[in-house]
Amino acid sequence: MSHFFKVKSLDEVLSLTREFDPTHAETVDTREAFSRILAEDVAAPRDMPGFRRATMDGFAVNASATFGASESTPAWLEIQGTVLMGQVPDFELPPGKAAGISTGGMLPKGADAVVMVEHTQTIDDTSVEIYKSVAPLQHVIDASEDFASGDVVLASGTFIRPQEAGLAAGMGFTTLPVHRVPVVGIISTGDEIIPIDQDPAPGRIRDINSYTLRGFVQEAHAHVIQYGIVKDDPDQLQKVCEKALEQTDMVLISGGSSVGTRDYTVEVLSALPDTQILVHGMSVSPGKPTILAKSGTKPVWGLPGQVVSAMVVMKMVVIPFLQRIQGYRVPKPLVRVPAKLTRNVASAQGRRDFVRVMLETGETGLTAKPVLGKSGLIRTMVLADGLLDIGENLEGLEKDTVTQVILL
Amino acid sequence: MSHFFKVKSLDEVLSLTREFDPTHAETVDTREAFSRILAEDVAAPRDMPGFRRATMDGFAVNASATFGASESTPAWLEIQGTVLMGQVPDFELPPGKAAGISTGGMLPKGADAVVMVEHTQTIDDTSVEIYKSVAPLQHVIDASEDFASGDVVLASGTFIRPQEAGLAAGMGFTTLPVHRVPVVGIISTGDEIIPIDQDPAPGRIRDINSYTLRGFVQEAHAHVIQYGIVKDDPDQLQKVCEKALEQTDMVLISGGSSVGTRDYTVEVLSALPDTQILVHGMSVSPGKPTILAKSGTKPVWGLPGQVVSAMVVMKMVVIPFLQRIQGYRVPKPLVRVPAKLTRNVASAQGRRDFVRVMLETGETGLTAKPVLGKSGLIRTMVLADGLLDIGENLEGLEKDTVTQVILL
Repeated sequence: MSHFFKVKSLDEVLSLTREFDPTHAETVDTREAFSRILAEDVAAPRDMPGFRRATMDGFAVNASATFGASESTPAWLEIQGTVLMGQVPDFELPPGKAAGISTGGMLPKGADAVVMVEHTQTIDDTSVEIYKSVAPLQHVIDASEDFASGDVVLASGTFIRPQEAGLAAGMGFTTLPVHRVPVVGIISTGDEIIPIDQDPAPGRIRDINSYTLRGFVQEAHAHVIQYGIVKDDPDQLQKVCEKALEQTDMVLISGGSSVGTRDYTVEVLSALPDTQILVHGMSVSPGKPTILAKSGTKPVWGLPGQVVSAMVVMKMVVIPFLQRIQGYRVPKPLVRVPAKLTRNVASAQGRRDFVRVMLETGETGLTAKPVLGKSGLIRTMVLADGLLDIGENLEGLEKDTVTQVILL
Repeated sequence: MSHFFKVKSLDEVLSLTREFDPTHAETVDTREAFSRILAEDVAAPRDMPGFRRATMDGFAVNASATFGASESTPAWLEIQGTVLMGQVPDFELPPGKAAGISTGGMLPKGADAVVMVEHTQTIDDTSVEIYKSVAPLQHVIDASEDFASGDVVLASGTFIRPQEAGLAAGMGFTTLPVHRVPVVGIISTGDEIIPIDQDPAPGRIRDINSYTLRGFVQEAHAHVIQYGIVKDDPDQLQKVCEKALEQTDMVLISGGSSVGTRDYTVEVLSALPDTQILVHGMSVSPGKPTILAKSGTKPVWGLPGQVVSAMVVMKMVVIPFLQRIQGYRVPKPLVRVPAKLTRNVASAQGRRDFVRVMLETGETGLTAKPVLGKSGLIRTMVLADGLLDIGENLEGLEKDTVTQVILL
């Protein structure tokens, strides 16, 4: 096999998300819908809140009856009654009268505003003085002010945060249509890799990648099946890979993705039925030896064995792909924060470099301090708070440059 | 009861976290330790990786044998053997000799660097030409380069990301000591609130807050018990509250936290045994009517009933408290991104204002567009991507100001 890659840029690899479909829809209890992706548009079945509602404790009034009222010239209003919470008022409010009301209460017919209790003084059971004028609809939510019946309130492809679930609950949706949670298969390869509960003889190391990859997948709210460690043996890898493709929606293979004599991943994937290699090599550092194949309808990734490289590829490429499979209309943007570099950082032109940095709070905002160390050292990722993103056309970034750091 | 609060600032309320202890430690499988908080320091039980390891495919050499090598004047080395993956090499490497090695392989005794395969040409079975010099330790991870035996590699109070779990796995920890996941009780109050599976008569609305609060707690990786809806009845609220305090680590009560005639939360909490009211009123908008009590060792929150106010208080105050209870040494910082305001935003001096904004990508970075609408409208939170944070000493922010937006 060739010692050289034909590399694709990160953006070219990301654009291949369009080759893959999201998982099907299923229905879940709204209480369990957090962090899921909506699979259909949701429309308001009725006006919300559905009635004119007080947002303050005080007196419901017709606003015009308060115009001109002040501390020195209060308006004097007769009390017509008191609104009971959760009840339709059993009276109407003629102009010039007032009704006691609590936050959340339904305004009686004829009322269009609420005067806050702080701006009133009850004279006796039947009358109240108003010290401040209110405008129509002040301290009130109108019947369809939150949503009008028929409005599409949540679009298909929306990530469900607390507020989206709250809105669905408020409209009476006890269940929601969401995309099925994808299952991701994880395979580690390498004759030198041993399970973490074994004691490594010299020359062997424990399996780190299964755990870091698992973490990223769980962070992205998807499920994991681990297929353990496969030796550097194409037949064995093919068998495990076929099994993983049957049982999961996406497969990750770490190790063996490069172009060396022990790198069997491309060979094995090429031999699978109905499988195309879409990518072998990415102009990204760390992370160059990355493979993407499409097997049937499913993506299979060959990831570098180096622990840092595998994590960078997960963060920058595989998780955005997974989001597409979860049903996101647009992959969720990475969170980037500006920080000032504490030293010069060199980079190679023609590739996108991701440099691990520690973030510290300085006098004028965040500073980013590069973490030194090879991409085989997990320590460097433990120390890192984020990644500098150095573009393909740059030879580096100078000390004191303010740059966007991708949070890890 | 008084119509007026004696308010505390947001920072004063946050400083009360020190009144509460984190949950106890428990042991979990490392595969399930993501997003948990470490409860003890973890030290490296041995050097990692534990042997001198290649980070590239190529030839293990003694670096000095390559000094001066170039394309035009290659170094010629005799091949001593090939390193098998996962094995201790069964030969030593005399100076001036080379051994084939793959990424991850163990360097033979006498070797201190690796020449990448791209910079070599194998002449025959016994000799290789080297076209590029390497420095000692180049393309090599040394025996204790990741960690030395005894190093504290993860400190108590650390949030476990993929890399922390990977590191623990690499050191052979199949389980980790972490803080127990706190359980949070959620109670909604209000005569007008009905369960979401019922159809609201006029004057009634469905329970939104139980769902939004639940979402925040789940986002923070804690467990929820919902205690449903309690009418505006102090005896009933006290009973449910006592039950929740028995069964959970922290209790949230939404609604009834203000100073109106129907606001029973403070009264009920004051009547509980061994309970102190630490806060009643916060100089924050929305979110002023917030209560914090300490009942025994546990925090109980009275949150505003207004949906937006309740969410802002959750985001800014309750979740940082919950992180403390989860064992974070320092509450996780809120993620803030800079964005340019699209219009003037007014604010009241003497209180901290949180203004909902939509973020859009403009030509020169993000823009923040205020979402207009009352704090009773869940829609405004669904439209919002973040919160502007307008300090106590400001009367507002001007159009085109670049300000830090807290991501929602």
